[in-house]
Amino acid sequence: MPAAIPSFARVLILAAVLVPTFAVADTPDKKPYRSAKEIIDAAPASAWRDLDPANTLYMQLPAGRVVIELAPGFAPNHVANIKALAQGGFWDGTSIYRSQDNFVVQFGDADADDPAKAKHFPANAKDKLPAEFTRNSEGVAFDKLPDVDGWAPQVGFADGFPVARDPKTSTMWMTHCYGIVGAGRNNDPASSTGAELYVVIGQAPRALDRNLTLVGRVVKGMELLSAIPRGPDPMGFYEKPEQRTPIVSIKLASDVPESERTPLQLLRTDIQAFRDATEARRNRVDDFYQTPAGHIDLCNVPLPTRDPMVKADAGK
Amino acid sequence: MPAAIPSFARVLILAAVLVPTFAVADTPDKKPYRSAKEIIDAAPASAWRDLDPANTLYMQLPAGRVVIELAPGFAPNHVANIKALAQGGFWDGTSIYRSQDNFVVQFGDADADDPAKAKHFPANAKDKLPAEFTRNSEGVAFDKLPDVDGWAPQVGFADGFPVARDPKTSTMWMTHCYGIVGAGRNNDPASSTGAELYVVIGQAPRALDRNLTLVGRVVKGMELLSAIPRGPDPMGFYEKPEQRTPIVSIKLASDVPESERTPLQLLRTDIQAFRDATEARRNRVDDFYQTPAGHIDLCNVPLPTRDPMVKADAGK
Repeated sequence: MPAAIPSFARVLILAAVLVPTFAVADTPDKKPYRSAKEIIDAAPASAWRDLDPANTLYMQLPAGRVVIELAPGFAPNHVANIKALAQGGFWDGTSIYRSQDNFVVQFGDADADDPAKAKHFPANAKDKLPAEFTRNSEGVAFDKLPDVDGWAPQVGFADGFPVARDPKTSTMWMTHCYGIVGAGRNNDPASSTGAELYVVIGQAPRALDRNLTLVGRVVKGMELLSAIPRGPDPMGFYEKPEQRTPIVSIKLASDVPESERTPLQLLRTDIQAFRDATEARRNRVDDFYQTPAGHIDLCNVPLPTRDPMVKADAGK
Repeated sequence: MPAAIPSFARVLILAAVLVPTFAVADTPDKKPYRSAKEIIDAAPASAWRDLDPANTLYMQLPAGRVVIELAPGFAPNHVANIKALAQGGFWDGTSIYRSQDNFVVQFGDADADDPAKAKHFPANAKDKLPAEFTRNSEGVAFDKLPDVDGWAPQVGFADGFPVARDPKTSTMWMTHCYGIVGAGRNNDPASSTGAELYVVIGQAPRALDRNLTLVGRVVKGMELLSAIPRGPDPMGFYEKPEQRTPIVSIKLASDVPESERTPLQLLRTDIQAFRDATEARRNRVDDFYQTPAGHIDLCNVPLPTRDPMVKADAGK
């Protein structure tokens, strides 16, 4: 009877991905294998960092809240402008007006093309910023992955974000991984303002690295963005305004009463437990895996979050 | 006035991605740069191949039709079983019972775990197949990408699918790129039947390569799968049956009257136009790009399709 087979098949692709069973590995140093989840669960409280409310955006959609961690170290001018836009209520009542499959959702003022309808910026927001495609990497703590990367000389983490680094030019830049938030621009490299933002929802389009200013990362609520029905246009725009997803508001977390903030911590990327968890993913040893990859791609490294009152979500 | 800036910003991230403007490049061989779209639009009719109806699945959802190209060269036993399951109506009335963000949707018999409710296989479908994680690469035409890949010694295309290859072991395998279809299994490597299938909807989980049998690729209708609301369970399962997406039917295209088939052609991957288009994406020269990537990842190479009666969708 075949009935039992689909059953196991359904259970087990899960098992492989989220709850690898414990197994004693015959590794050279004879340490027993621990799964990424086990390593992360055992990490001390100091392994976790709080989000800085002054650099956290809450995007309120009808379906719930999306939490974005801003990256002032990478895009100080854009982040300052985004804060001014949020504090001025710029996005309240705007929309997600684009969802292109395997690429990005984009949001902001859908009427920006129409001078008669376009929203004005708050008084303290700027309409002209420098491009912030890369930053000087000197003195910036960098946790390098040992893995080869085709797009950049080095990849790893800085300020908790996935980044690339070029020692020859002493530059560093954020990478277009899933959930990264970037600022749309014109052909003029210095034409983004942070008012029109996009979020990567597919295979990392890393050809865009160093060509746009990246401003942060969605740390909670990605599923509210990634599952938005795609627009019929080849670029994912909607035909009718009512197809857009309304944005109730985008606020700085520091402007929201503490009791209404989302409790959320992120695993630090500059600690041994993070490195160990990444290695456990790179070379899995469990009952499911026949062939450990021996490699991990920068954009495949989960950046675990947890509600400090509950338990960690170690990710896949 | 800032109004014009968001406007341009909105237009231009598109322009960069889908409609690079023509520009004369100062390349070493002095050939003018042509965008991938221009190259593909200029390709002769012979650059396109028809889908083989005997190896094409039509998955009918309430929202429309998903077209899957099967890969008999990579998984002959699974593909034969999938055909038997489709011809026996196995999936008609089943569902997409899982949608896990940045990972997979999975479909088949949601009641497979319950022996009392599980669907029986059609008489000519098998409940035991060999694992088909890799194939012998000898004699298999392989169009190698020049780009480095961290997961495998070589990557490229075979039979029109994205694949990896190891010359040392003379093996080749399909890779877990966006839209690839795989067969869920138990810990036993030979426990997949093809009845429970998953489709990659996020960053390529290539650590799964060579650990599961991949059976084909979604060539049309991905947006009907990728935008399905995620399940609340950490692994994307739904709490209630009514949250699942019903599958009206899955049929072999050859069992559908010709007049009801989806007209669809795929660009061949073994031709110069495909290589040229890939190179045009690897090193973009247009008014938007400040820094061409000089690289492309296997899973970032679009595999263009077209309705032969209309025009090509060259992809991003």
